[in-house]
Amino acid sequence: MKPRRSLWMLGLESEEPSEQSRAELAAGLSQRFGVTLQPPRIPSVAELQLRPPRLSPPDTLAGFCRTDTWERAYHSYGYDRTDHAVFGHYPNPPDVVAHPRSEAELAAVLDWCSDRGCCVIPYGGGSSVVGGVTPPEDPRPIVTVALDELDQVLEIDDVSRAARIQAGVFGPHLEDQLRPHGFTLRHFPQSFAASTLGGWIATRSGGHYATNHTHIDDMVESVRLLTPRGWWETRRLPGSGAGPDPNRLVIGSEGILGIISQAWMRIQARPRFRATAGVRFASWQAGFDACRHVVQAKQWPANLRLLDPELAAGSAGLDGSQALLIIGFESAELSQAANIAQAVAMARAGGGVVDDADIVVDDGAEQATGRPSAVGRWRQSFAGGGAGIGAAAGLGLVAGTFETAVTWDRWPALDAAVRAATQAALDAVCGGGTVNCRFTHVYPDGPAPYYTYFGAFRSGAHLLDQQAAVKAAASDAIIAAGGTITHHHAVGRQHRPWYDQERPTLFADALAAAKAAVDPAGLLNPGVLVGP
Amino acid sequence: MKPRRSLWMLGLESEEPSEQSRAELAAGLSQRFGVTLQPPRIPSVAELQLRPPRLSPPDTLAGFCRTDTWERAYHSYGYDRTDHAVFGHYPNPPDVVAHPRSEAELAAVLDWCSDRGCCVIPYGGGSSVVGGVTPPEDPRPIVTVALDELDQVLEIDDVSRAARIQAGVFGPHLEDQLRPHGFTLRHFPQSFAASTLGGWIATRSGGHYATNHTHIDDMVESVRLLTPRGWWETRRLPGSGAGPDPNRLVIGSEGILGIISQAWMRIQARPRFRATAGVRFASWQAGFDACRHVVQAKQWPANLRLLDPELAAGSAGLDGSQALLIIGFESAELSQAANIAQAVAMARAGGGVVDDADIVVDDGAEQATGRPSAVGRWRQSFAGGGAGIGAAAGLGLVAGTFETAVTWDRWPALDAAVRAATQAALDAVCGGGTVNCRFTHVYPDGPAPYYTYFGAFRSGAHLLDQQAAVKAAASDAIIAAGGTITHHHAVGRQHRPWYDQERPTLFADALAAAKAAVDPAGLLNPGVLVGP
Repeated sequence: MKPRRSLWMLGLESEEPSEQSRAELAAGLSQRFGVTLQPPRIPSVAELQLRPPRLSPPDTLAGFCRTDTWERAYHSYGYDRTDHAVFGHYPNPPDVVAHPRSEAELAAVLDWCSDRGCCVIPYGGGSSVVGGVTPPEDPRPIVTVALDELDQVLEIDDVSRAARIQAGVFGPHLEDQLRPHGFTLRHFPQSFAASTLGGWIATRSGGHYATNHTHIDDMVESVRLLTPRGWWETRRLPGSGAGPDPNRLVIGSEGILGIISQAWMRIQARPRFRATAGVRFASWQAGFDACRHVVQAKQWPANLRLLDPELAAGSAGLDGSQALLIIGFESAELSQAANIAQAVAMARAGGGVVDDADIVVDDGAEQATGRPSAVGRWRQSFAGGGAGIGAAAGLGLVAGTFETAVTWDRWPALDAAVRAATQAALDAVCGGGTVNCRFTHVYPDGPAPYYTYFGAFRSGAHLLDQQAAVKAAASDAIIAAGGTITHHHAVGRQHRPWYDQERPTLFADALAAAKAAVDPAGLLNPGVLVGP
Repeated sequence: MKPRRSLWMLGLESEEPSEQSRAELAAGLSQRFGVTLQPPRIPSVAELQLRPPRLSPPDTLAGFCRTDTWERAYHSYGYDRTDHAVFGHYPNPPDVVAHPRSEAELAAVLDWCSDRGCCVIPYGGGSSVVGGVTPPEDPRPIVTVALDELDQVLEIDDVSRAARIQAGVFGPHLEDQLRPHGFTLRHFPQSFAASTLGGWIATRSGGHYATNHTHIDDMVESVRLLTPRGWWETRRLPGSGAGPDPNRLVIGSEGILGIISQAWMRIQARPRFRATAGVRFASWQAGFDACRHVVQAKQWPANLRLLDPELAAGSAGLDGSQALLIIGFESAELSQAANIAQAVAMARAGGGVVDDADIVVDDGAEQATGRPSAVGRWRQSFAGGGAGIGAAAGLGLVAGTFETAVTWDRWPALDAAVRAATQAALDAVCGGGTVNCRFTHVYPDGPAPYYTYFGAFRSGAHLLDQQAAVKAAASDAIIAAGGTITHHHAVGRQHRPWYDQERPTLFADALAAAKAAVDPAGLLNPGVLVGP
């Protein structure tokens, strides 16, 4: 029996914060923002009054289909469940939630949906921050297909270093199955514990590697996708030049073409050699200029993450004026000592400061050289990035993250415009707040900046409207400044207006036509990426 | 005035071999294969009798549209022009060849084709070995649109390291325009001198880098494509996770969606640091096992090319039993001494032999360390890979190359099956011949082997039929053994039957629907990739 996930925060029921934790957090935030916050009581499942299901699964499917309140409430949302759960707000739940245990059951439920003309919402880990798994406003009944029972590593090819993996496996469980064989997928989005392989592929997830193979895209060797017209399975190939890549149309398709059931993924030997340094810079600009210099040298470090002065102060204890660049290399079999020395030399040439004693080189021995440093403190902070969200539920904190990518020539202007627009929105909506930035991924031709904002709740307006106002201001600024509406958070329902501005209109037409070819009735995730 | 290209070989008219060269080659081949070969006379342009053009361009387009015999004959073929030119075989030439000098002229000619219902064949360098630019058998008039007048680097962004480049520029001319700025695209397919940027993008060309960013795909920042329904232009972005990548539908589209007019390409600083070694192995298997070990360590060498014993003997002077692995690193600003030392250590651990004195390390100084070696000899041989083809025109030599990619677990069986099938076909068709192999590109999950075959002409059957018989046998074996029909030669008209077996049928339907969305009348390169 799998542990039950929380209905109102990202994590397990067993990880939900105590009433005391919530009260303590409320007191702390009240002091910080000069307001008076009280954690609201969160309605129990028994109190929820959901719209009755508009259809019932037939007996042949009843063994893996659910219509109870918890299932329908849980699958009403992704990461944004918190903001809705505290108000008991479930106006549009799925009518049925299917948990197929095999591809045969998956096909059976999709056939049934086709026969009955249901909307179908594929559901992985439910960590979408953009409404990618939220049912649409649609007169048709809604069936959410949760992949969580398809969670096995089916096959490992240790010569080619690839594994055939079911799409519904969560990150930690996937790594648990690869570890005994000495392998790892090494894809660690911040949502790692709460997201699945299929979700990563469907949303072009951004992971562990800060440079080079940043997205899951490069790790997909082949995919197996069930569409309303049948199976779409690509050949296992290390590379090909035969027409447009069929995998690349599935990767990022966000459930509109079909349901990913499994994939052959490129895996790798577990790293034993590591080298890391945290380099301080006198200013944000000095930091990002040096970061550009390092990434353009194409050493492809696994880690190359830059924190702005505010974040470096809060997360790594710097003085508030300095930026921090984390550089890290790793390998299963080769010392990274020479690489870190070269990268640090480039960073120092750009004004970076790091003591030799703070360059950590681990050549697979038990004891690494170099002192524990700011890097360790920041990493710990990053891994716990979701902490506090649950405890803050319902307190009215306007907080969120958004991210983009932009070419270097436009980056300083984008940064200025996005910070100004977000701050202005926070000032207007919350009477103040803060914005900070880090680079999660970096390319030779530009960075992928990731912004976090906080503002206190100002009573009189609905929290969700306030969040939306801040987010819209930031999104408008991103698109106007030449960025992408998302580097790795996907489009979902929330980013759709800006996505429509970013992509070529004729590509939208082509994608809609491609969808219609495999999903002629338009059942799958309607309104996401294409269509009204 | 641009130098005129040869009508019957890949290169310029000025590079055509003399009658004496042709006679000498014929004598040499006669001796080698025990036959009597005579170089036939190649018909002059004045002797060619082409079908009269089925339509004439209007006055508004006449300034850049041609209907003369040379233009129509030249644009009848790609790389296979030689085999047809010697017989004066031009049964299906384009009716008009347009050379637009601006995007306005490009749009004007495509509008005219739409109005008149013409087939449109985009034409880059004409180096296709798979019939990708050969007009189809189609009752509609045919207009070939040659991009050669659109050959400028329009803009360089030296901060982001990207350049906006017109699609019709040939490789050397492109590098000539980047060099004064200290940059290079560093994409050198073997066809470099005879192919264009637009062709590389349309066909997913494989280039200089043997590992990591092997295909042009990774160098495309944005593309600008003219479809019958208008422009499709993507945003310049270093990375994005917003839906399926719109560039990836254009890359590899082989002219069926539209005509690529320009692209923003990722460029880079010119390398100054290099390190190279040629490592010998006692057998083909020892060589490919070591090659796998090196690529799976993910150092991403620029060069990692393996030659089988026959090729290593013929090209690099080895003894015929040994395989040769060429390892090369390069960088604009970092010494590659440590990298080559680590890679050579891995190769030696797999039984590889190389003298320390033969490891060449060039740290940007005038004099490199290390002796000239087999690597240099092989590189010279590779760069002249097309030489001899022109001189051999019409001699009836059955010769060709084909390539694939396959996962490592299937590689030894694929190699055995492909060699056996090709040899059997050569025996049957030519009464004997040879097949050799090298890896042009290598991935952690599998190699991209490249085969070259030669057989002497046996009279009594048509040369083209013989070529087709050998090629078909090899292609059948590749598909049956789990490979791709092409790693970087594209699909064109020749690979279509095997491409149809390789790709998912539903992807074919999706691609056809995407094409119909932007090219509703089906004007562009009909029969390539999709359609009858």
